Amino acid sequence: MTQNPPAAATTGPGPVAAPERLARAALSRLMEPQDAAGLALVQAVGAVDALRIGTGELKAGPGLEQEMTVFLQEAGVGTWPGLAASLKRWIPRVPDLAPERDLATMQRLGGRLTIPGDPLWPEQLSDLGLHEPLCLWWRGHEIAFPHARRTVALVGSRDSTGYGGAIAGEFAYGLGQRGYTVVSGGAYGIDAHAHRGALAGGSSELPTIAVMAGGVDRYYPSGNEELLRAVANQGAVIAEVPPGSAPTRYRFLQRNRLIAALSAVTVVVEARWRSGALNTAHHAESIGRIVAAVPGSIHSANSAGCHRLLREGGAVCVTDVGEIAELAGGSGEELIGERQALPAEHDGLTLEDLVLLDALPLRSTTSVEKLCAVAGLAPDAVRAGLGRLGLLGLAVSERGGWKRTRKEG
Amino acid sequence: MTQNPPAAATTGPGPVAAPERLARAALSRLMEPQDAAGLALVQAVGAVDALRIGTGELKAGPGLEQEMTVFLQEAGVGTWPGLAASLKRWIPRVPDLAPERDLATMQRLGGRLTIPGDPLWPEQLSDLGLHEPLCLWWRGHEIAFPHARRTVALVGSRDSTGYGGAIAGEFAYGLGQRGYTVVSGGAYGIDAHAHRGALAGGSSELPTIAVMAGGVDRYYPSGNEELLRAVANQGAVIAEVPPGSAPTRYRFLQRNRLIAALSAVTVVVEARWRSGALNTAHHAESIGRIVAAVPGSIHSANSAGCHRLLREGGAVCVTDVGEIAELAGGSGEELIGERQALPAEHDGLTLEDLVLLDALPLRSTTSVEKLCAVAGLAPDAVRAGLGRLGLLGLAVSERGGWKRTRKEG
Repeated sequence: MTQNPPAAATTGPGPVAAPERLARAALSRLMEPQDAAGLALVQAVGAVDALRIGTGELKAGPGLEQEMTVFLQEAGVGTWPGLAASLKRWIPRVPDLAPERDLATMQRLGGRLTIPGDPLWPEQLSDLGLHEPLCLWWRGHEIAFPHARRTVALVGSRDSTGYGGAIAGEFAYGLGQRGYTVVSGGAYGIDAHAHRGALAGGSSELPTIAVMAGGVDRYYPSGNEELLRAVANQGAVIAEVPPGSAPTRYRFLQRNRLIAALSAVTVVVEARWRSGALNTAHHAESIGRIVAAVPGSIHSANSAGCHRLLREGGAVCVTDVGEIAELAGGSGEELIGERQALPAEHDGLTLEDLVLLDALPLRSTTSVEKLCAVAGLAPDAVRAGLGRLGLLGLAVSERGGWKRTRKEG
Repeated sequence: MTQNPPAAATTGPGPVAAPERLARAALSRLMEPQDAAGLALVQAVGAVDALRIGTGELKAGPGLEQEMTVFLQEAGVGTWPGLAASLKRWIPRVPDLAPERDLATMQRLGGRLTIPGDPLWPEQLSDLGLHEPLCLWWRGHEIAFPHARRTVALVGSRDSTGYGGAIAGEFAYGLGQRGYTVVSGGAYGIDAHAHRGALAGGSSELPTIAVMAGGVDRYYPSGNEELLRAVANQGAVIAEVPPGSAPTRYRFLQRNRLIAALSAVTVVVEARWRSGALNTAHHAESIGRIVAAVPGSIHSANSAGCHRLLREGGAVCVTDVGEIAELAGGSGEELIGERQALPAEHDGLTLEDLVLLDALPLRSTTSVEKLCAVAGLAPDAVRAGLGRLGLLGLAVSERGGWKRTRKEG
């Protein structure tokens, strides 16, 4: 069993060693996303030897299966069919392997492959543990991925309503203005509104990122081609599957874990009772990310999924960009502060002074004696209270009597 | 210091002893609601002697102040000005005392006074501890108050929107149909819609109850006079303050604790960022009742208070009557069940079968070999999987090839 080169060799500012890069490119075609056994194999022997074992070039060592079992158990995978059975799934795809061609394709598209250790690599993906992707096929700006704290996912229904679309756009614009990177899935509906809003409002180097379920060589869905081209031009379009891969339903579900893991907060803007966005939310929750949901009309089926998330306790209710920024750990507090700073005139009064204020007439004046009876307070308490209310501008004395101060306008 | 008659003498089916009833009637005029010292005095010596001490007829015993301090500390009241200072607040109202007149007024209105131990008395108010009201002035049906589990409070803004009003009406009607009693505050807006819906849908003996901040001799606000008359005819209009009491702001806030304590669940249908309904919600939370909030548009100021409750974690998001009934401990589960019982076609598939399903074409058929490459599965896994998908009606074999089953229209 060959050992992986030490981790230090794969980090630092320079590119990771070419064989590691090629091996991960190849493995990303052999394996479906979240192939736990495959990922455990890479963990055990490194990508280069995992590929050689997968293609039959190298024979597995005697202790390997045991070692993989440990990795799998740590990741919560209780039983697995064993190495030979797991590798059988790869065999039909071995003839298609051509990692150099895939890398050349990416270069032609102005893109690249990024793998753990690269400066571009999003560190926050390591929170996925064993399920961290092998690599990301990356189309767009060559700028390091922002920290999760500066990244917010906005997700939701493809068939969004005007309400949901407007909110996705507003929120993305506002997050962009505050320098956040908006992550979404490039789909119709909420995703598209989120990307558009972020492109319009974006003030960071990477205003928005679309995470694809299929290969980044094709902009999918085709109706979003122009939008995704703009995302690639100003931000990035990424995928863990290689060019030419179809966006299958399985890959959509796996892709959702990347959206969740890239971001500190996943905001579900609009979602039906059953929805892919809820799948993203559950991924987020499972790795300790914050899930937020936008409320809406209880008569709108497109908000039922959001309300389900709120009701079942996992999600935080968010209604503006400040609240989202606050959840992400940024500076949203000032907005909240503003709203809370509109006190009612009677705020901070003692109960006795409130009783007294209630007892004061608005038009004619009244006597201290009468106030004692109406408010149920002793004369000295009434006099002291009137003094306090007077100082606060709430009561006024006129011709020996007292009344409430009339509010202007 | 005279002792209160033992509790047993004040319970049972018959009316509580007349002096106790008269004393509580009188004390409810001397004391503002939640006069902690006054309530501690009643706790210590009973209502009859508390009244005699309050009016100066009886001198307080030497240990009384100490005993009251214990009651107050148990109720969370740390410091108090002492007995003499507390009683000073009552003195201006002593000349107005006429409990027999108040009871006669109630009788003339077809109402009555109910006190702890009476069959009518809502047992759940004892959860207020020291702050349990002394008595309730009760106008309407002479029917025992339902258990908190059969009672739901619907509260919200006076200036409700069409959205909030419709929901209050729907929810109250649905709760009424299920035999719940709907409690609210008799105000304009959400309260009025809730009472109306409950009157229309009510199937219990006491479909709805309005808890007033002022005396029940007057229907307030006047615009709701007809509605409140109907509530009194079919349900009940109640207050802890005696006839003739004005509905002051202080009393509105105290009244809210009664709405909360009467009900298992307090549902805030619509509320602004600052709202009396939030005060009711906080009362409910403080005595361990469930608070629920109805979500709405984030662009509606009238839902901002609901979202605040959801966001700050105290409230459960509710969107239909079934969810409310479930919270109250009743039978709302069937509705939830119905909604969750709409599975997607791929529910319950293993990941491998899902991958295979994704790989199956919809129109033309494909071969097992081709499926191996597309799905990344070994031939025997593909064959076994096709068998399972076939049994589930998801795949079909035609002329030696396989394709996905086309869904009907």
